[in-house]
Amino acid sequence: MDHNGPMTATHNGLRRIVILGGGFGGVYTAQHLGRLLRGRADVEVCIVNGENYFVFQPMLAEVVSGNIGILDTVSPISRIAPHAKLYVRNIEHIDLAAQTVALSPALSKESTVLRYDHLVVALGNVTDFRNSPGLHAHALPFKNLADALRLRDRAIRVLGDAAIEPSAERRRQLLTFVIGGGGFSGVEVAAELNDFIRRTAQKYFHLDPSEPRVVLVHSHNRILDREMPEGLALYAQKVMQKRGVEFIFNRHVVSATPKFTLLDDGTRLDSRTLVSTVPSSPNPLVTALGLKSDHGRLVTDGRLRVAGCTNVWSLGDCAAVPRAEGNAPNAEGGGTCPPTAQFAVRQAKTLAENIVAALDGGQQRTFKFAELGKLAALGRRRAVGQLFGKINIYGFTAWLFWRAVYWAKLPGLDRKLRVAGSWLLEFFLPPDLVQTGVDRRRGVTEEFHEPGGFVFRQGEYGNRCYVIATGRAEIVHQDPDGHEHVIAELGPTDCFGASEVLQETAYPASVRCVEETKLLVVSKEDFIKFADALPGLADRFSAINQKMAAVAQENQSAQQPASAT
Amino acid sequence: MDHNGPMTATHNGLRRIVILGGGFGGVYTAQHLGRLLRGRADVEVCIVNGENYFVFQPMLAEVVSGNIGILDTVSPISRIAPHAKLYVRNIEHIDLAAQTVALSPALSKESTVLRYDHLVVALGNVTDFRNSPGLHAHALPFKNLADALRLRDRAIRVLGDAAIEPSAERRRQLLTFVIGGGGFSGVEVAAELNDFIRRTAQKYFHLDPSEPRVVLVHSHNRILDREMPEGLALYAQKVMQKRGVEFIFNRHVVSATPKFTLLDDGTRLDSRTLVSTVPSSPNPLVTALGLKSDHGRLVTDGRLRVAGCTNVWSLGDCAAVPRAEGNAPNAEGGGTCPPTAQFAVRQAKTLAENIVAALDGGQQRTFKFAELGKLAALGRRRAVGQLFGKINIYGFTAWLFWRAVYWAKLPGLDRKLRVAGSWLLEFFLPPDLVQTGVDRRRGVTEEFHEPGGFVFRQGEYGNRCYVIATGRAEIVHQDPDGHEHVIAELGPTDCFGASEVLQETAYPASVRCVEETKLLVVSKEDFIKFADALPGLADRFSAINQKMAAVAQENQSAQQPASAT
Repeated sequence: MDHNGPMTATHNGLRRIVILGGGFGGVYTAQHLGRLLRGRADVEVCIVNGENYFVFQPMLAEVVSGNIGILDTVSPISRIAPHAKLYVRNIEHIDLAAQTVALSPALSKESTVLRYDHLVVALGNVTDFRNSPGLHAHALPFKNLADALRLRDRAIRVLGDAAIEPSAERRRQLLTFVIGGGGFSGVEVAAELNDFIRRTAQKYFHLDPSEPRVVLVHSHNRILDREMPEGLALYAQKVMQKRGVEFIFNRHVVSATPKFTLLDDGTRLDSRTLVSTVPSSPNPLVTALGLKSDHGRLVTDGRLRVAGCTNVWSLGDCAAVPRAEGNAPNAEGGGTCPPTAQFAVRQAKTLAENIVAALDGGQQRTFKFAELGKLAALGRRRAVGQLFGKINIYGFTAWLFWRAVYWAKLPGLDRKLRVAGSWLLEFFLPPDLVQTGVDRRRGVTEEFHEPGGFVFRQGEYGNRCYVIATGRAEIVHQDPDGHEHVIAELGPTDCFGASEVLQETAYPASVRCVEETKLLVVSKEDFIKFADALPGLADRFSAINQKMAAVAQENQSAQQPASAT
Repeated sequence: MDHNGPMTATHNGLRRIVILGGGFGGVYTAQHLGRLLRGRADVEVCIVNGENYFVFQPMLAEVVSGNIGILDTVSPISRIAPHAKLYVRNIEHIDLAAQTVALSPALSKESTVLRYDHLVVALGNVTDFRNSPGLHAHALPFKNLADALRLRDRAIRVLGDAAIEPSAERRRQLLTFVIGGGGFSGVEVAAELNDFIRRTAQKYFHLDPSEPRVVLVHSHNRILDREMPEGLALYAQKVMQKRGVEFIFNRHVVSATPKFTLLDDGTRLDSRTLVSTVPSSPNPLVTALGLKSDHGRLVTDGRLRVAGCTNVWSLGDCAAVPRAEGNAPNAEGGGTCPPTAQFAVRQAKTLAENIVAALDGGQQRTFKFAELGKLAALGRRRAVGQLFGKINIYGFTAWLFWRAVYWAKLPGLDRKLRVAGSWLLEFFLPPDLVQTGVDRRRGVTEEFHEPGGFVFRQGEYGNRCYVIATGRAEIVHQDPDGHEHVIAELGPTDCFGASEVLQETAYPASVRCVEETKLLVVSKEDFIKFADALPGLADRFSAINQKMAAVAQENQSAQQPASAT
């Protein structure tokens, strides 16, 4: 990495605190620093995040059911932390030796390099699909606002498609939703998605209410096994089962294709929609720092300073913060704080105070916090929770408690009012069915197929062109008598699909994968732009026609001498 | 076009009415047909639209200022017309002889062919950028929800970028917004955008309130020249001017680049944001029908039947419907109905009745409607309007009237409640600043440059790769002494930018266009996927390095003999 780009240097003794990440840890640190440093011109606080908003994660699942408006769970960072300079950019590189952070170029095509005096790493974790083939291409993650909107759009789309689909088999496939993971996130998504589908399928899409299936797959023998005591988890299961959620226990998702999800025991769930809420892995930027870590989380001391550093701090899900004495023991065991918003928000306050102490030479303090409780919402009017590690609550009471607690925690009066309004309207208004359109993946996407899986079948129409990235497939032609002929084999770098898409004809043959195959997919719209600009490209993508023509010619020349004799 | 795909045929005497388009004309026709045909199993109504929602156009501009929630102006079509079968698909082809409409494949990869007994063409018009180079690439249209969200996101993004931009010149460029067109749409967008920027620039982005500029460019000597009498238009101008909108009259936009907008007199407006509300051109699907048209609109008789057809009907913006006697004269002159929602909604009722009459052999009637009035909102608490062709209203009264009329027309109780709630909250809550993320164009995009325009400059960083589609550019290197050297010329099919993007280095030279140049642009993310799958691709995109290496070698070999002598 080369840093010739413009450098935003600190000057005249101005000191700069750079916060990376706009989740609970980062945004609340910025807010506390703003308060502590009010009126001081000698310290600047910068916060870097890929979006200009902060996501209030606990309410994200409610966006799926439409109980709350699609922007109600997110707040502009500039409103929560008005005194911090906000950089809406991606982080390209962190250089601890030079004390700089390089940000991706934005509209201006210039990369910005921020020099820091203190760095706060609050980058959370990311959803990692690397070890499960097909998940990157076909599973929907559930972490940010775009994920929630995408899942909602997908649900509306498959309901709409099912409404006009005459084949019962295809309808069943469209209406099956698989959720991987039975932690807080998986349970809440399954519950809200299930509510939404049950409320709308019959009423607005005229579908048989017995057709939709919501299946939660979990690797343990009950849900919430790390988060909640057994009794509460079993209660949650009962509530959800009664409402139509199915559970598959002691199994996990191993791969996914456009048409089914495969579990580790070979079970195949025919489904167009898979939501994966596991596994989480550390943010690659954190890993690249090469600092001491514990299961990928940066090890800090009790004062939230990263081990081995003097001016680098960390908190939230990406940090392994020791639990000081006096902190209640953790159900997950271990001596570090659990990765929850509750802890990140409290760590932010201590961290901000300690940075100011470090700047001004004051006394730093050790992070101490006893967990107040945990809550899981189960959809319409039901929740479970445990307070102070001992009081169990469940059902309608827990649900009221859930709403009260999170409503109180929601930042900003405007959001509070909007959410209250949405909750009120939800009692007597039908759920919203507008698709925002974020589900339409544009650009280059991926597809994954198991051996024997069809990329498309002869006679179908397409609006995509394909490149094989890894794996092997074959072109299979079915003659009018129903006999199958393998025309040719396709492997990595082979491209196909263009001629049919450009001429709007049906595929003259099927493409069937012979091993696990990953394909890159380009939309018709994008392909046409390129084909116009780069002559020869369309030919390269016409493998099927070429191979079929070659075989036809061979057959002809093989036949001609025969007929001559 | 080949129609081997599955055909959804009508059977057993079932007759099918297919409505194309989900705007005012299409959706209201479907609604009226639902009412008229209630309980009848012998007629099916299908409606085809690219989105699953209907956009209430008159309130769209308020989405930009955030006065109303982002989904408040759109309603699910399945809610407004619950008895129609909704196909959320693109239309590929209309075959009048075969009486079929072919729809694009959706999730299922199968194209659907709908056979019709009666066809209703309600496809409106489209924004046409073909004759203005660069507008397709750089101007934002303003027709649907995505356009409104994109403009809103863009405004928030440039305000955020300006807040951290040290250069006054770049800040000014970021903060200049140009709107092309002074009709209803252009005026309302300019007013709402201006309100939003003035309300937020200083308060949330700490910008000097004198820096933002909102410039409306119109081809006539006053705004609303075809829509409103002169007195009202001048009043509207005065209100807007007072609030900071600038006007440029008797000019129009001829081209746009990423950094400026060019007018027909050579005026260059340095700006990153251009909204174009002109010109509209007929939908290509309508043109392709080859039927009798008037300025691109399908000519119909007074009963809304398309000239020369027995079972094809049309209404709304894509139809030239004669004004019957008794209709008030039109300010635009001419004998056809103006392209407004007011007319489309009334036409829908007549059209639905006439189709039912045609099916059942009843009496058809002629469309008759006297325009009630017209209104234009001017942003915060101001509007102008004319009622029954003679009563002029303006100011706060007109604004109250505007809200009352359009709120009453908004379909659905839920939307009415939400909009009322948003209008109420808007009085005491700050405007929303969350970016929805739709502004991020993914996939293949385009860029247009005037001669002398830089695609990028030496030393900048990029995250895009380029292919020249049309035009010519040159690679220009500036040596340490500041001398410019033209290294090589680039033309159509030349690709560049990849090596710098992949290696995250600054561009070693600038690329400057020598004539009007159109480029295809691929994002770094997409390019990497392809470069991994297709070896050799990255090399092809490394024109700059290759040409520079070639020149360096030439210089060396030229120098070596010289130094040897």
